[in-house]
Amino acid sequence: MKIVVLDGYTLNPGDLSWEGLKSLGELTVYDRTPVNENQIIINRIGDAEVVFVNKTPIRRETIESCSKLKFIGVLATGYNTIDITAAKEKGIPVSNVPSYGTMAVGQFAIALLLEICHHIGHHNESVHQGNWESKPDYSYWDYPLIELADKTMGIIGFGRIGQQTGKIAKALGMKVIAFDTNITEPGKEIAEYVSLDNVLSKSDVISLHCSPIQKELSIKKASGK
Amino acid sequence: MKIVVLDGYTLNPGDLSWEGLKSLGELTVYDRTPVNENQIIINRIGDAEVVFVNKTPIRRETIESCSKLKFIGVLATGYNTIDITAAKEKGIPVSNVPSYGTMAVGQFAIALLLEICHHIGHHNESVHQGNWESKPDYSYWDYPLIELADKTMGIIGFGRIGQQTGKIAKALGMKVIAFDTNITEPGKEIAEYVSLDNVLSKSDVISLHCSPIQKELSIKKASGK
Repeated sequence: MKIVVLDGYTLNPGDLSWEGLKSLGELTVYDRTPVNENQIIINRIGDAEVVFVNKTPIRRETIESCSKLKFIGVLATGYNTIDITAAKEKGIPVSNVPSYGTMAVGQFAIALLLEICHHIGHHNESVHQGNWESKPDYSYWDYPLIELADKTMGIIGFGRIGQQTGKIAKALGMKVIAFDTNITEPGKEIAEYVSLDNVLSKSDVISLHCSPIQKELSIKKASGK
Repeated sequence: MKIVVLDGYTLNPGDLSWEGLKSLGELTVYDRTPVNENQIIINRIGDAEVVFVNKTPIRRETIESCSKLKFIGVLATGYNTIDITAAKEKGIPVSNVPSYGTMAVGQFAIALLLEICHHIGHHNESVHQGNWESKPDYSYWDYPLIELADKTMGIIGFGRIGQQTGKIAKALGMKVIAFDTNITEPGKEIAEYVSLDNVLSKSDVISLHCSPIQKELSIKKASGK
């Protein structure tokens, strides 16, 4: 069985191992494949039965040209890069990794927010430059600091990552409101589901956890178009 | 009634109002008072009945010299700056503000931790300098990023602020262990109480939420001295 990884570098820049895949067949790993050059994509897949991609698109043309293809594995969460309609027509299963980044992305979203609230790196530099020492007070700040408790976070796209972000926001003392077309029980324990308009008008902070396509659809739906 | 505020500036650099206190008596507000010049502290209190301080120490000598003093209000949480034994002997009540900073300090402790994990400010600058654009990959980082989920946070001093910090850490997916001489029910819901030695040996991150004095006592106690 031939297995091709088209863009392995960002998943495994050297700190992981491809041995698991290698044990399953004849493995070829490309670090990168140009996303817009379909012919290169087709040539590299060739007569492989299995292709793994991270962000390289697998278009209808590719699926129709690579007649041996039996499986498409997305090494990431978002599979909007795959023409799943074309894959379905050919009976090719498409897998993704729905939850590998849930905790990391929730953490990162809150880290971005706390950077806005505290500018820790900037204050660190400023203190090292002696700016605190030269003040007559024991308190020092070079930006207005923002307390999040009792402020409202609005989350658009309240799936796994949105909910994880909401959990942290709630622990920070924030009120959490969310908009999603899919309302879930675990979601209700974290946030109050509201309309998109309400998220936009009532939030102090808005965190986006949906794909650009979902976002567009949501906004169209909310505006009645 | 004469009321003196010895170091009002950091509490109210201009965005709050002293009107509430002014309505209660003859109010004098000093922005700052030198902490080590006891005679200035004594002179400024003079024959006032009420003194408010943030970090200016009220020593035994001050309490014994200011014979009209009936009340000491600390405009902060920590009251280790007040000789409470001397105040008690004279029947002078000492108040503090035990909880004004609970949410803010918890948020700030986590912001410091997330700065270590992500260096958002640094990456922001680096991206603005074009360092992401010039990379062949869609992923960019200039530091190893640290995921907190499943790591262990050890908290020394598990009062209000320690517990609030622990709540956020827990929401980030961390295991939380804590050391405090005072074990509480709300605390047990957030963390596993362990010995100081265990906090020190089993934690990936340690967050200190005790006064320097308590810390010293805890360490002495733990080491059997």
